[in-house]
Amino acid sequence: MDHADLTPAPSADGVWDDLRLAPGLARADVPLAANEGASVVVQGGVVRWVGPSSALPAEHLLLPRYGAEGALATPGLVDCHTHLVYGGQRANEFAMRLAGASYEEVAKAGGGIVSSVRATREASEDELFALALPRLQALLDEGVCAIEIKSGYGLALEHERKQLRVARRLGEALGVTVRTTFLGAHALPPEYAGRSQDYTDLVCHEMLPALAAEGLVDAVDVFCERIAFTLAETEQVFQAARALGIPVKLHAEQLSDMGGAALAARYGALSCDHIEHLSQDGIAAMKAAGTVAVLLPGAYYTLRDTHLPPIEQLRAEGVPMAVSTDHNPGTSPALSLLLMANMACTLFRLTVPEALAGITTHAARALGLQDTHGLIAAGRPANFVLWSVREAAELAYWFGHNPARTIVRQGRIVKGA
Amino acid sequence: MDHADLTPAPSADGVWDDLRLAPGLARADVPLAANEGASVVVQGGVVRWVGPSSALPAEHLLLPRYGAEGALATPGLVDCHTHLVYGGQRANEFAMRLAGASYEEVAKAGGGIVSSVRATREASEDELFALALPRLQALLDEGVCAIEIKSGYGLALEHERKQLRVARRLGEALGVTVRTTFLGAHALPPEYAGRSQDYTDLVCHEMLPALAAEGLVDAVDVFCERIAFTLAETEQVFQAARALGIPVKLHAEQLSDMGGAALAARYGALSCDHIEHLSQDGIAAMKAAGTVAVLLPGAYYTLRDTHLPPIEQLRAEGVPMAVSTDHNPGTSPALSLLLMANMACTLFRLTVPEALAGITTHAARALGLQDTHGLIAAGRPANFVLWSVREAAELAYWFGHNPARTIVRQGRIVKGA
Ligand SMILES: [Zn+2]
Ligand SMILES: [Zn+2]
Repeated sequence: MDHADLTPAPSADGVWDDLRLAPGLARADVPLAANEGASVVVQGGVVRWVGPSSALPAEHLLLPRYGAEGALATPGLVDCHTHLVYGGQRANEFAMRLAGASYEEVAKAGGGIVSSVRATREASEDELFALALPRLQALLDEGVCAIEIKSGYGLALEHERKQLRVARRLGEALGVTVRTTFLGAHALPPEYAGRSQDYTDLVCHEMLPALAAEGLVDAVDVFCERIAFTLAETEQVFQAARALGIPVKLHAEQLSDMGGAALAARYGALSCDHIEHLSQDGIAAMKAAGTVAVLLPGAYYTLRDTHLPPIEQLRAEGVPMAVSTDHNPGTSPALSLLLMANMACTLFRLTVPEALAGITTHAARALGLQDTHGLIAAGRPANFVLWSVREAAELAYWFGHNPARTIVRQGRIVKGA
Repeated sequence: MDHADLTPAPSADGVWDDLRLAPGLARADVPLAANEGASVVVQGGVVRWVGPSSALPAEHLLLPRYGAEGALATPGLVDCHTHLVYGGQRANEFAMRLAGASYEEVAKAGGGIVSSVRATREASEDELFALALPRLQALLDEGVCAIEIKSGYGLALEHERKQLRVARRLGEALGVTVRTTFLGAHALPPEYAGRSQDYTDLVCHEMLPALAAEGLVDAVDVFCERIAFTLAETEQVFQAARALGIPVKLHAEQLSDMGGAALAARYGALSCDHIEHLSQDGIAAMKAAGTVAVLLPGAYYTLRDTHLPPIEQLRAEGVPMAVSTDHNPGTSPALSLLLMANMACTLFRLTVPEALAGITTHAARALGLQDTHGLIAAGRPANFVLWSVREAAELAYWFGHNPARTIVRQGRIVKGA
């Protein structure tokens, strides 16, 4: 059974029995021992009770039953940093680079981010929707229940609008929580070459207010980097966001330490993302502001980066770490959040519990969804996954397959039985 | 439709129309232009004709038709190096290491290869079959049509037999070509500690002859390394294999240059595998012997190895390069051959055509299956995959999802329609 085909999936209301709660990823109403058989009660699409099966309140005894056969349960996964909506793809560029083409040759052949901008601008809203749909389905099929989708390949009002509208439509069509992020300040569009300040003004004075007024902007992001926008331009965008009451996040310190994380923290950013070159000052500022560190091992891997993010210091300071696909056509054509968990462990040396919190609890926090997603707990929308593995560690250990056997998303059984 | 549930799948006999042949991975009976619509004729489970749809011979016009809607076609994938059959798994060890446990602590907790040996010995044949089945299904679901499975976690006659019998049974049960490799010389079993020569004698004089007599040994492999078997012990095993007329292959130069590749080449080895530390002499010997270089990026990645195999020299000498999962519970719990193609490109800088030949044509050669697998061509068993991508490069570019939309294996439609 797979209801990714847009037909309504059956309700998950009832008692989900005989499951094992992944450590740290559930809040039980009645304490239970490690590996004790647990039950989750769903009513009206909402989790009503979590605890040991032996303590199931009598009032739920007559509800329909779903036997999980001892399967491991986690909250629905949260992919908190993606550029999922774009025209074209860049497999040819990938192949050319490997065949020895220089950056100039790739650019001449139409490669690089400008090719994604061109293809995104040329595509209609329906075309962008159709292209993004199978990518989103691949992520959902692995248990993603909330996802962030950024604009940033339009770089002009009408095209950024198109991307964000598609993001919203995807959420409605597939029944998944989508958080939209306006990333107009992703790259300088070709028509603004040499006029970075003019473009930043356009982002702040026209694009953002217009898109926000249309309800298309849940957060605002900037790519703050030598090759993108300066610290001053970043702050200008943050001020525009603050004026509208919209939270911010930042592509920070990926290639160099720009001081972006500290700036973002001053603006109470939800997250700073990439952060390979994050300084101790930046870490302290994030800690003080409650900003989440979003790690993107797929881009690190694809770029063959060797400069690790400061994991030990983040851990020492207690900065919550999330892990995401950074799905994008240039530097991370990744379509598996579990693979990112494996890469976060293998490449970044996250512990398994850190990696699993990174794709659930902390990823939810990076989207401001900490009260509704990323934890199996009473009062939250029913979003959880039953996995055909014995131990939680297996979710990060095996790589390259999909062990999701049952997915409950927005109170519906969208995969498995 | 998914016939991995052991019920017979429908015959693929007929004309497969409107597909595009991946460059270099098919031999057409009538030449066709790049991207020209192609047809593949299957009769009696065998490919009878390949060529442009416009040139389909009249004799096939009345056969049943399967429209591929322009899908990209490749031969069935070939995974030429796996340790797929074993007891237990080592997710807990993976988690312990990340949490900072030392090798001693992991060993005390029962980790390391000895834990796989113990669990394999303790498991019954049926248990090993049940454990390996979903792992094999994960690989098959991505289009694998031939796979090598090694012994080497039994390390005693009855347990090595058990592993190889399970490998054979898996091939029969799932309708997939399985090549069994006897790897009795994988590690020294605990009961032979300090008696490496005695164990090598046992491998050569008792285990190999007995298992070969039972038809369980398609090839013989050795782990030639400082931490495993010496060059002299390796040659002793090769001599025993030669006496029985069984081809050899070798885990060679993974951690150091032992001279194993040159030795293996002298014995006409099908392949030398790992080869991160392969010397120029080894490359020349492999070239002269027609030995395939099997690259295992999943282990390189998991071990965070930094010593790249000599790709440029192998390419310069024209040594065929295969790419495989090396699926095993310790150093490569990988279950996707496409992900290995991506890793071969990203980590080893294979070109896309090299990576795709590496998981098809050259992988078939590494198993001695070059006349039956790894190429779509008349006269071969029908093993091919239709992919929901536009360009062949996409198979190596996206990572972490499974774009196989239709799989024909052993002349049957085992996935898609
Ligand atoms: Zn990004
Ligand atoms: Zn191996």
